[in-house]
Amino acid sequence: MDLTLGGLTSRNTSSPPDPADTSKQESDMAAPAKGENLSLVVHGPGDIRLENYPIPELGPNDVLLKMHSVGICGSDVHYWEHGRIGDFVVKKPMVLGHEAAGTVTKVGPMVKHLKPGDRVAIEPGVPREIDEFCKIGRYNLTPSIFFCATPPDDGNLCRFYKHSADFCYKLPDSVTFEEGALIEPLSVGIYACRRGSVSLGNKVLVCGAGPIGIVTLLVAKAMGASQVVVIDLSASRLAKAKEVGADFTIQVAKETPHDIAKKVESVLGSKPEVTIECTGAESSVQTGIYATHSGGTLVVVGMGPEMINLPLVHAAVREVDIKGVFRYCNTWPMAVSMLASKTLNVKPLVTHRFPLEKAVEAFETAKKGLGLKVMIKCDPNDQNP
Amino acid sequence: MDLTLGGLTSRNTSSPPDPADTSKQESDMAAPAKGENLSLVVHGPGDIRLENYPIPELGPNDVLLKMHSVGICGSDVHYWEHGRIGDFVVKKPMVLGHEAAGTVTKVGPMVKHLKPGDRVAIEPGVPREIDEFCKIGRYNLTPSIFFCATPPDDGNLCRFYKHSADFCYKLPDSVTFEEGALIEPLSVGIYACRRGSVSLGNKVLVCGAGPIGIVTLLVAKAMGASQVVVIDLSASRLAKAKEVGADFTIQVAKETPHDIAKKVESVLGSKPEVTIECTGAESSVQTGIYATHSGGTLVVVGMGPEMINLPLVHAAVREVDIKGVFRYCNTWPMAVSMLASKTLNVKPLVTHRFPLEKAVEAFETAKKGLGLKVMIKCDPNDQNP
Amino acid sequence: MDLTLGGLTSRNTSSPPDPADTSKQESDMAAPAKGENLSLVVHGPGDIRLENYPIPELGPNDVLLKMHSVGICGSDVHYWEHGRIGDFVVKKPMVLGHEAAGTVTKVGPMVKHLKPGDRVAIEPGVPREIDEFCKIGRYNLTPSIFFCATPPDDGNLCRFYKHSADFCYKLPDSVTFEEGALIEPLSVGIYACRRGSVSLGNKVLVCGAGPIGIVTLLVAKAMGASQVVVIDLSASRLAKAKEVGADFTIQVAKETPHDIAKKVESVLGSKPEVTIECTGAESSVQTGIYATHSGGTLVVVGMGPEMINLPLVHAAVREVDIKGVFRYCNTWPMAVSMLASKTLNVKPLVTHRFPLEKAVEAFETAKKGLGLKVMIKCDPNDQNP
Amino acid sequence: MDLTLGGLTSRNTSSPPDPADTSKQESDMAAPAKGENLSLVVHGPGDIRLENYPIPELGPNDVLLKMHSVGICGSDVHYWEHGRIGDFVVKKPMVLGHEAAGTVTKVGPMVKHLKPGDRVAIEPGVPREIDEFCKIGRYNLTPSIFFCATPPDDGNLCRFYKHSADFCYKLPDSVTFEEGALIEPLSVGIYACRRGSVSLGNKVLVCGAGPIGIVTLLVAKAMGASQVVVIDLSASRLAKAKEVGADFTIQVAKETPHDIAKKVESVLGSKPEVTIECTGAESSVQTGIYATHSGGTLVVVGMGPEMINLPLVHAAVREVDIKGVFRYCNTWPMAVSMLASKTLNVKPLVTHRFPLEKAVEAFETAKKGLGLKVMIKCDPNDQNP
Repeated sequence: MDLTLGGLTSRNTSSPPDPADTSKQESDMAAPAKGENLSLVVHGPGDIRLENYPIPELGPNDVLLKMHSVGICGSDVHYWEHGRIGDFVVKKPMVLGHEAAGTVTKVGPMVKHLKPGDRVAIEPGVPREIDEFCKIGRYNLTPSIFFCATPPDDGNLCRFYKHSADFCYKLPDSVTFEEGALIEPLSVGIYACRRGSVSLGNKVLVCGAGPIGIVTLLVAKAMGASQVVVIDLSASRLAKAKEVGADFTIQVAKETPHDIAKKVESVLGSKPEVTIECTGAESSVQTGIYATHSGGTLVVVGMGPEMINLPLVHAAVREVDIKGVFRYCNTWPMAVSMLASKTLNVKPLVTHRFPLEKAVEAFETAKKGLGLKVMIKCDPNDQNP
Repeated sequence: MDLTLGGLTSRNTSSPPDPADTSKQESDMAAPAKGENLSLVVHGPGDIRLENYPIPELGPNDVLLKMHSVGICGSDVHYWEHGRIGDFVVKKPMVLGHEAAGTVTKVGPMVKHLKPGDRVAIEPGVPREIDEFCKIGRYNLTPSIFFCATPPDDGNLCRFYKHSADFCYKLPDSVTFEEGALIEPLSVGIYACRRGSVSLGNKVLVCGAGPIGIVTLLVAKAMGASQVVVIDLSASRLAKAKEVGADFTIQVAKETPHDIAKKVESVLGSKPEVTIECTGAESSVQTGIYATHSGGTLVVVGMGPEMINLPLVHAAVREVDIKGVFRYCNTWPMAVSMLASKTLNVKPLVTHRFPLEKAVEAFETAKKGLGLKVMIKCDPNDQNP
Repeated sequence: MDLTLGGLTSRNTSSPPDPADTSKQESDMAAPAKGENLSLVVHGPGDIRLENYPIPELGPNDVLLKMHSVGICGSDVHYWEHGRIGDFVVKKPMVLGHEAAGTVTKVGPMVKHLKPGDRVAIEPGVPREIDEFCKIGRYNLTPSIFFCATPPDDGNLCRFYKHSADFCYKLPDSVTFEEGALIEPLSVGIYACRRGSVSLGNKVLVCGAGPIGIVTLLVAKAMGASQVVVIDLSASRLAKAKEVGADFTIQVAKETPHDIAKKVESVLGSKPEVTIECTGAESSVQTGIYATHSGGTLVVVGMGPEMINLPLVHAAVREVDIKGVFRYCNTWPMAVSMLASKTLNVKPLVTHRFPLEKAVEAFETAKKGLGLKVMIKCDPNDQNP
Repeated sequence: MDLTLGGLTSRNTSSPPDPADTSKQESDMAAPAKGENLSLVVHGPGDIRLENYPIPELGPNDVLLKMHSVGICGSDVHYWEHGRIGDFVVKKPMVLGHEAAGTVTKVGPMVKHLKPGDRVAIEPGVPREIDEFCKIGRYNLTPSIFFCATPPDDGNLCRFYKHSADFCYKLPDSVTFEEGALIEPLSVGIYACRRGSVSLGNKVLVCGAGPIGIVTLLVAKAMGASQVVVIDLSASRLAKAKEVGADFTIQVAKETPHDIAKKVESVLGSKPEVTIECTGAESSVQTGIYATHSGGTLVVVGMGPEMINLPLVHAAVREVDIKGVFRYCNTWPMAVSMLASKTLNVKPLVTHRFPLEKAVEAFETAKKGLGLKVMIKCDPNDQNP
């Protein structure tokens, strides 16, 4: 096992921790016995194991978290099945998990806004340096960013995890840990809708009714979209979309992108100002170009093959902007605020729960595509939402 | 009576109408007998009269509307009481009314998107030329704009009214005429929130719980604001705000602006990103500066005295931008869309209704400040909402 | 010949002109004898003719212009050679020309900001209605727009031409007619740079060193771009680019898009924040995606084949936005202002001049691709720049 | 002397440096003998002294700089004369200076983009935490920011200074140290123009022809402003403005704000789209409101009295936005790029030079307001620009 992986969690901690400091950080909450940190580790394709990791040492700006709820993301399952996603290859054992919430148990000496006992949601991406992207507020584009469960950075599917305090957000009592963990997928929807400039009274097309399509739908409605239509191949996914607020759903099969675009216009009464493509399929991106209103925006969230064939002129002369997203930035504070005020309800997304000890079973469930979100409960003493 | 006033309604019709054209425009809907056009006319301070105006002739881009519902605005009452608002002076008799909806009865020869029988909401401002402001999408700033019931332009508190078709918006069956008429005050709220860039998860302070404060609150919530706090002197107004969705209300009296700003921060947990000032009072604008989050925006909607004393440095060094609004632009389409999708409910705003024949009584009621919105029903055969 | 073509020039004049009005519009400048209006007309593929058109009648918001200088655009040549551009087909004879400047000789009765004798540049696109696009300041997207020399709308390669006064911009004495005519191609560059948000200190890549590439380069520098690199297949075009201000030029041949992108990064020291693609070639668009800095913008100006193969994921995960342009909007006023202040020099673009009588010869020259801009001089009494 | 002041320079170094690390950081450039660090220190009102400070120890993300050129800012002089600026009070001795450039002599172990020998410009503000403002790219608003020579943070008027590597920007050979130091005042102009959205072809009014007014003028022209008018009380300052590129200057005396606004409109031909107020005087802010074009922006750079009387309604109904600035953010990279490409020439700003040993004399000169910028040369072996 490679300790340096954990060492990368925080941008400030390349040097070995100062024992004097550590004693200073001792909190009033009981620290766990050394070595008790059950963690779900991927070793390579098809190989995930529950292992006992050391409890990480803190840097001056870090907090130690007792993990509570961690959702399984498609990327976690992908690393398990294939040992890689594109250029990101699991070369050494890596703890999985990045949709997470937990409780602060210890704080580094420079941490001011958090204290032991605070319940927090974790933003998994932490810039390691304040580079040009950070400085302009697009820190998600920083190439050297630490990101939970993206090789070689460890995630938080474990009992105890340390993270930069600046990227932990206090949850009010009214927001559950699971809601806190769901801020991660929700952030994809928030960021996609923001990149698309979804505005009051807009009509919005969402391509794909998987978890990301669903959160995008929820966010678009919360931003004041008057009508959202969701398209998908699967009737059952569309039923879920309808259940959580889609104004219209269209089940597609072998229609051409042009035909689907016409159907969308027909149900909405006019073309949608914003289309958010969450499938990555070539034909769906084409549909997005044909379907979007002149002057509108097509947001590319789904990742498909490297090269795809596109009617670019059709987009260009109608000034349909094509904007991609890379993860997200600046979404946690507003998400916490929205969840606290009940502007938006993500609770229905959780369809399965497993204790950390049964994490492998949880991954089997997620792999089968049953339900929407499988949640792993990391605190043996509190398995509540 | 000055016919040329009506002639200004449309930007295309300064020349006398061509009788040949008129015959061509004859629609399939029965035209009213010549001269039957009861109108509420202000002649000067304290002098409003119900008079019989000719039915206006159409220009090529105009539509003739049978008026249905027209709300009374504070400015209508002000013209009645004072014969002027600032530099706008009633020098010749002027028909009042600019919050209106009706039914198309005749269309000019170049009108394509409307036909007789269409129910429409009326945007009262119509640019007379495509000047620099028009071209950049800020047509509300066009100095030569036609605007209903702003001297010397006639309004639409009458039986029959002509308007530029481009500024009439078709209402779906699910939207009532009164909702259509309420798009005008609603537009002030939409435009103010847009100028303030109210975004998902924002905290918003609204100063003033009158009709504009109320619609601003409604719009801010529809745009995804997580918490809106409304402040006012009047407990009953605040009760209304609470009823229609304010998360918090604060009744203020003689507190200093600093003190009120602290209370606002206290109830919200942090300073609001956006403050929308709807009173015009000097102390309230000062409160807005102190209360708004660094990097946020103070939107000035209320109009106060010409010169006011402001802590400008306090705003400047915290980069709290101060933005005014002049009426609105580009709000009707999204408002129709929102009302159609029930994203927002304006129906509770209407507290009184009077038939056009009792318009003077309606104005007396509005002057007393009873209720929120007094609606005048102009169609003798249909007094429904 | 089809008079209704001319009748569409202004949005207000579909009905036959009122003779009474016409007499009223008589100006103090001598009107030409009836029928003396030599015009260059395309009848179909390969068929352009100099013909005598009637002098057009004015609508209330129109001005009559004595044409002075009209540049030949690639689209003019294309209509001549092919009788069509995409879906725009020359079905009836059409006057060519849309890069133009002239002198006002008569004004419609509602025109206020121009008077006979004013020298003006002509913006060729005039919205026929104030539709949703117009209202938001993107009038170039209005589907029903009148546009000079786009079927079926007549252009201004003639002696006398009428145009909407709102789209004629007064030239100060210090700006020549030819500079005024060149505002049209310049506008493409302004609009492309604005869509790409070219900012102070930016590095910019321009793909293609034809006339549009050249004006884009000029504008990017005027906006404060610190380094502009231009790429092209042709050494002579690149020499011109270097001459008018390119910081770097790269002659490309059979390199892959990846290789070209690397060369660009190498000469600039980092990837350009903005790439403006002016060729339409598939490989060049691909280069644009690979070459642009993460978080930057690729502006698609060149129009290529309907479908092209693109590395969309590469753009998406680096948040390189892809934005097309359709003509331009809101460029004339700033262009006049820049030319007046000598911020920018477009005079070197004109390489050939022909009197209107030799328009066919001028078109032959333009077709051969000799020089950059061929200018036609329409005023027999003044052939100066 | 308080060592902790220096310790705050970098956000990562609250814990005492690890001696093992330090040895690792030893560079190939000769380190100065211990204690040889002549520094200009303010002790209180009227009390500045040249003292020998220890050479600071580096944190992991820091670089040690051999200082070369440091400009004297009005704020430096103010701290010397008054011992405070507003709420910022000199409570312990503080090294002055924040307009600076130098050479890297040593780098911390995590520094990747700089190496000993690199010449750099120093951005004086360094966020101590990645808070909400940092995350959205407005790090200048971070309340806990480290800022050179703002109490209690030490500045860089000394021989050796340490700074966060992320806020040091490599200068190409073609940019002098003094140009590098001048990026600081230049940044105020860049940021002000950016806040005002100065665009190609804009007309701009700059109120005040002091150093900030002058750099604002330079930047506005570099951004493509077609006409810039500068107003001031002093003819000699205006002469300087004219010399470096002002299109117009207006010397004002006792005219009313209204009258000055009219003069501005008269020389420009229309109202300026952007006004940048650099004096802080109440009457000048009023002038800015009256003078600015409807829909434009007034940027408040100058800091005046706490409360000032403003014609707010006049700004609001014409939608003249009022935006303040607090220092700047995201300006260094583009400034380096511009200086490298000679887009802009700041060299004429330097009118006086003194070696560090004569710093008190330099401050006396600056206090007298002689010239524009007094530069202190900190490297005894290189006093070149």
